[in-house]
Amino acid sequence: MSRPAAAVNLADKLSQFSELWSQKKIADLNDYEVKLAKLKGEFVWHSHPDTDELFLVISGRLTIQLRTGDVVLEPGELYVVPQGVEHCPLAEEETAILLLEPAGVPNTGDAGGPLTKAPELLD
Amino acid sequence: MSRPAAAVNLADKLSQFSELWSQKKIADLNDYEVKLAKLKGEFVWHSHPDTDELFLVISGRLTIQLRTGDVVLEPGELYVVPQGVEHCPLAEEETAILLLEPAGVPNTGDAGGPLTKAPELLD
Repeated sequence: MSRPAAAVNLADKLSQFSELWSQKKIADLNDYEVKLAKLKGEFVWHSHPDTDELFLVISGRLTIQLRTGDVVLEPGELYVVPQGVEHCPLAEEETAILLLEPAGVPNTGDAGGPLTKAPELLD
Repeated sequence: MSRPAAAVNLADKLSQFSELWSQKKIADLNDYEVKLAKLKGEFVWHSHPDTDELFLVISGRLTIQLRTGDVVLEPGELYVVPQGVEHCPLAEEETAILLLEPAGVPNTGDAGGPLTKAPELLD
């Protein structure tokens, strides 16, 4: 993928997949990737030792569990998990998010394990 | 500003200012800044020699004029202007956008001039 030649419609892109916990890349921004994901349930506690991570909720409701308390995101709300801070996403209903972080950051951070998965390109 | 300690609500942040063509920083992501702006009218043709620039429309309608044609963004649509590509934002109605690019990038890029303005921090 190079860069999109036209507007990227988030709703259109979200309609192209239903898989949960699978990041789909929709654009590049320098060495960062703009990704979408659909979440339901609880992920795994992890941190990213080398980078912050931006979450923007598009639909649903996302709880970013932190060791110091929860951050709850409704649609139109964002939060940046600071580098090195342990977090565990939790979505009681199906939730669509936009993610932004440098390319190559593992989704499970330092935790690894069976949920580890590289982003896929969404055409 | 360090990072927000809670969810950042885009609508709330947008309600805190009315000034046009003035970028307001709402979060940091590593050495990038997440910013909001309200636009109406035409900006100035410019490019950013060292970086891509992400535009996400929240409300209104943004035309990103390029030398090769226009990209029109409705709410929920994004576009990344590639590094070095000349562009000129145009909004016929008042339009609210989220911007993402490295800190320190001048809003008028290589063009400079009277519209040049550093982002302001939105508490």
